[in-house]
Amino acid sequence: MRTQVAIIGSGPSGLLLGQLLTEAGVDNIILDRVGKEYILGRVRAGVLEEGTVGLIDQAGAGARLRAEGLPHEGFSLAFDGRDHRIDLYGLTGGKRVMVYGQTEVTRDLMERREASGARTIYEAAKVTPHDFDTRLPFVTYEKDGSTHRMDCDFIAGCDGSHGPSRNAVPKSAIRVFEKIYPFGWLGILAEVAPVNHELIYANHPRGFALCSMRSATRSRYYLQCALDEKIEDWSDDRFWDELRRRLPAHHAEALITAPSFEKSIAPLRSFVAEPMRFGHLFLVGDAAHIVPPTGAKGLNLAASDVHYLFDGLREHYLDHSDAGIDAYSERALARVWKAVRFSWWMTTMMHRFPDTSEFDQRIQEAELDYLTHSRAASTALAENYVGLPF
Amino acid sequence: MRTQVAIIGSGPSGLLLGQLLTEAGVDNIILDRVGKEYILGRVRAGVLEEGTVGLIDQAGAGARLRAEGLPHEGFSLAFDGRDHRIDLYGLTGGKRVMVYGQTEVTRDLMERREASGARTIYEAAKVTPHDFDTRLPFVTYEKDGSTHRMDCDFIAGCDGSHGPSRNAVPKSAIRVFEKIYPFGWLGILAEVAPVNHELIYANHPRGFALCSMRSATRSRYYLQCALDEKIEDWSDDRFWDELRRRLPAHHAEALITAPSFEKSIAPLRSFVAEPMRFGHLFLVGDAAHIVPPTGAKGLNLAASDVHYLFDGLREHYLDHSDAGIDAYSERALARVWKAVRFSWWMTTMMHRFPDTSEFDQRIQEAELDYLTHSRAASTALAENYVGLPF
Repeated sequence: MRTQVAIIGSGPSGLLLGQLLTEAGVDNIILDRVGKEYILGRVRAGVLEEGTVGLIDQAGAGARLRAEGLPHEGFSLAFDGRDHRIDLYGLTGGKRVMVYGQTEVTRDLMERREASGARTIYEAAKVTPHDFDTRLPFVTYEKDGSTHRMDCDFIAGCDGSHGPSRNAVPKSAIRVFEKIYPFGWLGILAEVAPVNHELIYANHPRGFALCSMRSATRSRYYLQCALDEKIEDWSDDRFWDELRRRLPAHHAEALITAPSFEKSIAPLRSFVAEPMRFGHLFLVGDAAHIVPPTGAKGLNLAASDVHYLFDGLREHYLDHSDAGIDAYSERALARVWKAVRFSWWMTTMMHRFPDTSEFDQRIQEAELDYLTHSRAASTALAENYVGLPF
Repeated sequence: MRTQVAIIGSGPSGLLLGQLLTEAGVDNIILDRVGKEYILGRVRAGVLEEGTVGLIDQAGAGARLRAEGLPHEGFSLAFDGRDHRIDLYGLTGGKRVMVYGQTEVTRDLMERREASGARTIYEAAKVTPHDFDTRLPFVTYEKDGSTHRMDCDFIAGCDGSHGPSRNAVPKSAIRVFEKIYPFGWLGILAEVAPVNHELIYANHPRGFALCSMRSATRSRYYLQCALDEKIEDWSDDRFWDELRRRLPAHHAEALITAPSFEKSIAPLRSFVAEPMRFGHLFLVGDAAHIVPPTGAKGLNLAASDVHYLFDGLREHYLDHSDAGIDAYSERALARVWKAVRFSWWMTTMMHRFPDTSEFDQRIQEAELDYLTHSRAASTALAENYVGLPF
């Protein structure tokens, strides 16, 4: 079997890259160790930057997003019992974010891919990149009891933080930067109208809370929790009570509750692996970097990588220039670090840390106070939130 | 002896408050434990915000400052071998800072005070505030072998971090917030033209450096150093060599050296005591808060306290309202914490910390990179540097 670009991973970054290549006439095959229904069962964030939406459009999968996504022109920063709106639209000269579940992005890209006739191989076990330091790389995998080989020009590792792509690179060739945060997010999904038409990020002495949504009838709520919390200790009632405590009174009173249909605890970390290119293997999205969910940069950063890599591959095949491919790692990482910094900053500003001194606590309050009173500081927050330019 | 306002401390904050009160017709006496020449021998920072300059004007002591001070419309952030100018004037809609030595401010205020006939008692030992929780406070001190008593309406503690004013308050009535930074600043003064017509703040793997000045012919240079460094280990040659290493090449080459005539090591800390009013005693400037010198906020913050306190005292005596006095602590502290946050942030961004991880290091680089590429972030820096409004 042979293709031009072998893509490992059928999450949104692999699908987005695959469909952009397909639309540009570059042959590609996606391999995934699991099946389609498993992938569509994952619950993930859903705040899309305009640049991400533009790429999904370019991949031919933007129609439903445009019809059903919720454009948001601001969000609330709640602290000290108050509620301050960050006017994203006004502060950035007319930019918005789009609230649309990542699962729905994946579904739309899968449908487009199927319609286009591009190939995806699901349930491919032991996917392994080979010889990517040569001009003749290939990928092997097992399926239906036998081992298969796929020859290709390039391998795109869109297979997440624990996938085979980064693991195939010698450890000595990778430099890793990591920060583990001393808390997690306890999140639930419930079939109720959101407490507010925009997101609420709440800083509270009891810990951070986030009121998000997937749609006008489906709410996604989070609470900062200790890393050793157990999900079975959090009944729905306890969750709703705790969320109410962390919100300003007018939001707490407006909160509508319902049984949760998903409940989970996720740790928070920042992680960057450098470089993002190893010969003919490229790392994309979570395979190269992880950000804490504060500020919703994870999926958008994967899309940003796809943007740079697609540009490079298109130049290679259509313009016969390797300039874009050669610049991929540097270009992608420059934007990655800006988003890693922003996610770290927003996480640091909004959460309670176990080792926070009283001085640190006041600095946090002074920062929120300054941020909400300064147009320049609010604009810096807003321009990062809506996404820095590619 | 009786006065309306007894001012403890004849540094710039005590002198500024005293002269504003004198100009407004409010009687005041300044007490200081040391003599005039000792006070004028202290070497201190000299970057004045426009609000500070305005208060010095209002105190009638601004003529020489206006004639000899150096208005600065920007400064340089140096990192990664590059040099990026922060256009204070352009980013803040026309604001500047004034470079003029604090010693000169003190001298001008002293001269104005003498000309106005207002009283200062130097070399007053064991100055102690009494009964400031009653309507009949007084201050005692020893001079010329006997104990004196000064009755007053109010006591203004402008006597620095280790003066008698804050010490007179029961510890249980004060809440203290403090951060000690794990490094110091090694500073020298030399009679040479500054390496650059504007200040240079340099972030370098070997540590922070600052190229500042007192005038067009007197340079003030600083190097971040370990807290256990000894001044005698730093010859002038070693200082100049190290400074050159931490500057971008074009500055290092332009550096003119000369024998230093002052050399010292200062630790860096952030400190805030709350509240700033205890009955009829007010804490002003360093008596209530200390900031690290990065960003040059110390003197300006003292001036900001003086602004709020003078407003309150003027209202008390001229408008017979205590509203301003009652609001003093809250108003002053709101601005104090913004400047404490800014100084902490600029210190954190510009220095190497002994326990900095590789992740933290990259975050610092990403912050500098973002800051110098974003107009919003540059504006936030600039508006703090020139001074937030009173």
